[in-house]
Amino acid sequence: MKDTIISELYTKEDATAAILVAKKQMGLKWEEIAEKIGMNPVWTHSACMGMNAFPQDKAEAIATLLDLPADTVDALTESPTKIWSQTVPTDPCIYRFYEIVGVYGPTLKALIHEEFGDGIMSAIDFDMSVTRVPDEKGDRVKVEMSGKYLSYNAW
Amino acid sequence: MKDTIISELYTKEDATAAILVAKKQMGLKWEEIAEKIGMNPVWTHSACMGMNAFPQDKAEAIATLLDLPADTVDALTESPTKIWSQTVPTDPCIYRFYEIVGVYGPTLKALIHEEFGDGIMSAIDFDMSVTRVPDEKGDRVKVEMSGKYLSYNAW
Amino acid sequence: MKDTIISELYTKEDATAAILVAKKQMGLKWEEIAEKIGMNPVWTHSACMGMNAFPQDKAEAIATLLDLPADTVDALTESPTKIWSQTVPTDPCIYRFYEIVGVYGPTLKALIHEEFGDGIMSAIDFDMSVTRVPDEKGDRVKVEMSGKYLSYNAW
Amino acid sequence: MKDTIISELYTKEDATAAILVAKKQMGLKWEEIAEKIGMNPVWTHSACMGMNAFPQDKAEAIATLLDLPADTVDALTESPTKIWSQTVPTDPCIYRFYEIVGVYGPTLKALIHEEFGDGIMSAIDFDMSVTRVPDEKGDRVKVEMSGKYLSYNAW
Amino acid sequence: MKDTIISELYTKEDATAAILVAKKQMGLKWEEIAEKIGMNPVWTHSACMGMNAFPQDKAEAIATLLDLPADTVDALTESPTKIWSQTVPTDPCIYRFYEIVGVYGPTLKALIHEEFGDGIMSAIDFDMSVTRVPDEKGDRVKVEMSGKYLSYNAW
Amino acid sequence: MKDTIISELYTKEDATAAILVAKKQMGLKWEEIAEKIGMNPVWTHSACMGMNAFPQDKAEAIATLLDLPADTVDALTESPTKIWSQTVPTDPCIYRFYEIVGVYGPTLKALIHEEFGDGIMSAIDFDMSVTRVPDEKGDRVKVEMSGKYLSYNAW
Amino acid sequence: MKDTIISELYTKEDATAAILVAKKQMGLKWEEIAEKIGMNPVWTHSACMGMNAFPQDKAEAIATLLDLPADTVDALTESPTKIWSQTVPTDPCIYRFYEIVGVYGPTLKALIHEEFGDGIMSAIDFDMSVTRVPDEKGDRVKVEMSGKYLSYNAW
Amino acid sequence: MKDTIISELYTKEDATAAILVAKKQMGLKWEEIAEKIGMNPVWTHSACMGMNAFPQDKAEAIATLLDLPADTVDALTESPTKIWSQTVPTDPCIYRFYEIVGVYGPTLKALIHEEFGDGIMSAIDFDMSVTRVPDEKGDRVKVEMSGKYLSYNAW
Amino acid sequence: MKDTIISELYTKEDATAAILVAKKQMGLKWEEIAEKIGMNPVWTHSACMGMNAFPQDKAEAIATLLDLPADTVDALTESPTKIWSQTVPTDPCIYRFYEIVGVYGPTLKALIHEEFGDGIMSAIDFDMSVTRVPDEKGDRVKVEMSGKYLSYNAW
Amino acid sequence: MKDTIISELYTKEDATAAILVAKKQMGLKWEEIAEKIGMNPVWTHSACMGMNAFPQDKAEAIATLLDLPADTVDALTESPTKIWSQTVPTDPCIYRFYEIVGVYGPTLKALIHEEFGDGIMSAIDFDMSVTRVPDEKGDRVKVEMSGKYLSYNAW
Repeated sequence: MKDTIISELYTKEDATAAILVAKKQMGLKWEEIAEKIGMNPVWTHSACMGMNAFPQDKAEAIATLLDLPADTVDALTESPTKIWSQTVPTDPCIYRFYEIVGVYGPTLKALIHEEFGDGIMSAIDFDMSVTRVPDEKGDRVKVEMSGKYLSYNAW
Repeated sequence: MKDTIISELYTKEDATAAILVAKKQMGLKWEEIAEKIGMNPVWTHSACMGMNAFPQDKAEAIATLLDLPADTVDALTESPTKIWSQTVPTDPCIYRFYEIVGVYGPTLKALIHEEFGDGIMSAIDFDMSVTRVPDEKGDRVKVEMSGKYLSYNAW
Repeated sequence: MKDTIISELYTKEDATAAILVAKKQMGLKWEEIAEKIGMNPVWTHSACMGMNAFPQDKAEAIATLLDLPADTVDALTESPTKIWSQTVPTDPCIYRFYEIVGVYGPTLKALIHEEFGDGIMSAIDFDMSVTRVPDEKGDRVKVEMSGKYLSYNAW
Repeated sequence: MKDTIISELYTKEDATAAILVAKKQMGLKWEEIAEKIGMNPVWTHSACMGMNAFPQDKAEAIATLLDLPADTVDALTESPTKIWSQTVPTDPCIYRFYEIVGVYGPTLKALIHEEFGDGIMSAIDFDMSVTRVPDEKGDRVKVEMSGKYLSYNAW
Repeated sequence: MKDTIISELYTKEDATAAILVAKKQMGLKWEEIAEKIGMNPVWTHSACMGMNAFPQDKAEAIATLLDLPADTVDALTESPTKIWSQTVPTDPCIYRFYEIVGVYGPTLKALIHEEFGDGIMSAIDFDMSVTRVPDEKGDRVKVEMSGKYLSYNAW
Repeated sequence: MKDTIISELYTKEDATAAILVAKKQMGLKWEEIAEKIGMNPVWTHSACMGMNAFPQDKAEAIATLLDLPADTVDALTESPTKIWSQTVPTDPCIYRFYEIVGVYGPTLKALIHEEFGDGIMSAIDFDMSVTRVPDEKGDRVKVEMSGKYLSYNAW
Repeated sequence: MKDTIISELYTKEDATAAILVAKKQMGLKWEEIAEKIGMNPVWTHSACMGMNAFPQDKAEAIATLLDLPADTVDALTESPTKIWSQTVPTDPCIYRFYEIVGVYGPTLKALIHEEFGDGIMSAIDFDMSVTRVPDEKGDRVKVEMSGKYLSYNAW
Repeated sequence: MKDTIISELYTKEDATAAILVAKKQMGLKWEEIAEKIGMNPVWTHSACMGMNAFPQDKAEAIATLLDLPADTVDALTESPTKIWSQTVPTDPCIYRFYEIVGVYGPTLKALIHEEFGDGIMSAIDFDMSVTRVPDEKGDRVKVEMSGKYLSYNAW
Repeated sequence: MKDTIISELYTKEDATAAILVAKKQMGLKWEEIAEKIGMNPVWTHSACMGMNAFPQDKAEAIATLLDLPADTVDALTESPTKIWSQTVPTDPCIYRFYEIVGVYGPTLKALIHEEFGDGIMSAIDFDMSVTRVPDEKGDRVKVEMSGKYLSYNAW
Repeated sequence: MKDTIISELYTKEDATAAILVAKKQMGLKWEEIAEKIGMNPVWTHSACMGMNAFPQDKAEAIATLLDLPADTVDALTESPTKIWSQTVPTDPCIYRFYEIVGVYGPTLKALIHEEFGDGIMSAIDFDMSVTRVPDEKGDRVKVEMSGKYLSYNAW
């Protein structure tokens, strides 16, 4: 295999690495980056990791903000191929969400069916936020998801 | 194997079946059952499915409401063994939540770390709700999770 | 486990078995059943197998047509839990479709992105048909799928 | 292992990389490339990804069109080894097709058997197209597959 | 689940069991059964195991030969769903064939491509025989497979 | 890890790469190479891929024929470690053989037992050939395997 | 499924159960049973578990010794289908042998190749014994395996 | 990732590669190396492959014998992390031992329990040898394992 | 399969069921049962679940205490086959221990090697306790394991 | 992919490698390093392996102690992504702990429920130690874990 040809490609991995290096050098937080380009932090981080595609103007905004290489804008606007290699995530912070799906998945399904009918919550027309809720017994992580209800059709 | 001995056990599966049969005969919805026993529908369904343990008074309340066999109260208050057999859920409605964990898991982790420090959201000291949000472009499913932030300790 | 309690449930599996027995006794084909209840054969078979939910009127129509037990209508209208136990199907007829997804999946994705933008084809707002296309070199199976395009949103 | 020897091989991966780089530089779409070499876009993309073999004249046509290195023509005409590393695809756009096979696989099988007898749809003598169908409630992705019916023989 | 409904179905498993019981009582070998119904022993055994569908006349012939229950003919002529539960077979006799595919699979592929072009050997339009070849150093098992060559088409 | 030390090893992978490069430059087919060194094409390809060990004279013959680097002869005569990374092969041409083992494995076993007694066909004292059989309805691929029968012993 | 038909089969599982019940009632050890029928205890246990086939005379000997039902002799002489359901055994006593294969497998291979040439130890023409070796520091389990060397052939 | 830092580590893989290169240049067999350093060939090969730790004097002896780089002695005496990547080994020579564990594992367990009580054979306080046993019907591979019996304790 | 024969076996599962039923009827806790038979609660629960073998006197003590059927004593003293069906446990309480092994496994290994040399902690000559440690910030679960150090031997 | 961009990142892997190289050069043990920075050896090793995050002052202490590159402090204080690639660990020293979870997991769960109620032991608010316990019959490894009890809440 000719490594020289393949190394001519500028991929989303390159864009992610360039962002991480610049973010560290500038000492910025994800929330600050998100705010400066006018997007939600969840979406911003996800798109920087290569799991979502930036609209053209947002790609340009972040490239300007972080002074990224020229090819980065194109890479950031490409439709991503969403791959995760661990069928069951091992990192405890991520695993807990997997566990929640395992324990409460059938419940989510039953209540969606009861409230909406036979259908699902979209994971495409979807948004999410993470916030901190102060609590005397220990602050809480609040995760809010909202997805369009999609109804099965009979034909 | 002596099936007669084993059939003397009254398990959470028996309790679930008894609830499903009674619920159908009485024509009740999960939301109605939850309201009548004074609990959230997510938690109620989950405990009826054997994925959570009822407190004594709530077990008695649901047994009375649905006129369940005597052993049911004990079975409903036992600590459950939470088992799910599909590592990756196939049902589309549940799979979408698995997909969200795959796509946004690293993002949830990054933002929790940025906001709280090195730690996780608890899946034990945890609650969740499902609600319908009217939307002109199609109603949306809103899922809210709240879990206590747990910090790693160094020692 | 008390088998007596569990056997009081009338499930979609019961409905499927009842349909298969009646279909054989009456000597009907899926296409004929579909035609008589005014639905597409793909959808009809799928719903009879418990992989889709019948609307009330169609459940009643098939129950009348096949003279099914009374509980069947309820079972057929319940939202199904879609479970398949073979991650990779072994049956050659079904495997070939899995193979097509493996070989052409990235191509479907690339062309959808090129034509529509960053998004997917819905598998929920979806329909499919199977037809026979006469061909001198051997008749062909034609499968047509149509799903609503769902666009990722940025937020 | 002597990396120098192995790097003398010019593989289909090299050809794919060369095509992707040239395609980007020339600003061409898959549909345009396909049209210029007189082939269907599905097939063209698939063969460029190394999942199908170009006939000699088409390999030469694309090499001329994109000004590819000399060894590319040979690489593009070689019979591919079709490998996909994810047993279950994680990318949502591709996963939906996997889900369709899971949900409707037994239905496709039943209807093929009913219409044709005991056999399968070929995934070799096969073609596919993707088109956009305008729809007021949102445009639809239409996927059409056609494969030769292959009958089991008894012997 | 209502076991009574499900037990009304007469399946291929029932037919296989009925054949095995009758075969033992009559003291017949697979080769004898095959000869008496005028088919190859490989095909005959496979169809009796529910992995292939008997033509009507052959199903009737075996039913008469072995004096099988009336429903058996129908079950034997149904298109089978070919399921094997061990991804890698553990039985040593079957495993050796899996091993051969692992070791020689790429070789079979390379030689088919060299001799025929880009395509495969059909496993549908296919037949196989097993014979004993006397050999001084120990008799040999000879397995002969023949499948129609299927060529990939470009479109 | 010191890459310099590891790169001093000349492995079977190096030998395979050297053979593939030379074969392409000389424009030889596997059948021609096999004929020139006096071996069967199946065995020759397999040994060149590193799945079998060349006898000393054959390794020298192929090294002379293809003008291979000096270390190649040693590498080709080493006993191979037979590794395949896909438990289930995805390439359609190889998969079909896996499918044949799945469908007909129990049949091969039953007929071997009926004809020979309790034992297996060896995959070690084994040979195989691939030939083209002209057929009006489309040429056929014929695969012949022959392995020594090995009988279980009781002790 | 007609359970009545299937329950007419007398399988190796039945034979194993019958042996275990009789062995317990008679208070015999495997070593005593083996001695009384004139076989090695390893082989005897394995054949009683359905993992090997008894020769006719040994099947009759054990049936007489343990006063087994009539059908048992036939079941014990049938060629077994060797199935183990745990890819990696969990029982600690069995797992240790799996671990030995993992740790020393490549070593066994290297030394067999060095001593014999390119080949393997047969697991079919094979025998094994387990003995107790007294040792001051704690008695030791001695396992001896002996299998015929099988050489790869070139063709 | 800074490759320069990681390449400063001298690992067991480096030691293995250095041994293999030297062994080949000196034309030594494992048995000869083992004899010269006064150890059993099984243990010697295993420790050279990085699956066991050399005592200091033996590490020095092999380093002197093969004229290995200075860091090798340290690497060879480190406690190894025993990793094998194939849950089920594919190499036929190693697979046969896996198969033996599958077929005879429960038997080994039963006989150990019968002879020793509830416990296992240690795979740590363990040794093994491989020898050639001449036999008229074909020489045999003899593998002898000896492990300390470890008894479960009740507490 | 003759279910009647198989149901004559009285297995450890029967013993476990009998204990669970009696324990509930008598309203005993594991700690009370353990104390009454003079064993540790960890060991007692584990042996009642069929994961360890009772010594004769302890089996008799628990049988008397709980008034168990006669066959139970024999079943409780049999060496268990330790099987767990979930490679990765899903129950959150058990999963956390799996997670600890994943995160701290290499650390346990490094510190055992540093303190003891090349070896392991036995899981056979092993005991464990669970206790409650009062703590102002919330009580803690304390798990103490103690296993004999087993040293690798060189030979 | 542009390797130059990615190699600008200084990761936890780099920090681990730098620590291992320095630790070897200075001839320090983990216990000594832990003591010098005032932390427990379990925690120290784990954080050096990249499985825990150092507090700022401890990162600086270890960087000073081992004279690590400047970027190391930042890398050591980052929240780790805890990944282990072997679902079931193969190294015998680590496997034994996995086995303990398999055998005693349900027991740990039962006793925690009995003592505390429905909840789990935290693996986050958690600490562990490893010590050597002298014993005449062979020294023992003692592992003590302590985790905060977390109670399920009903809502």
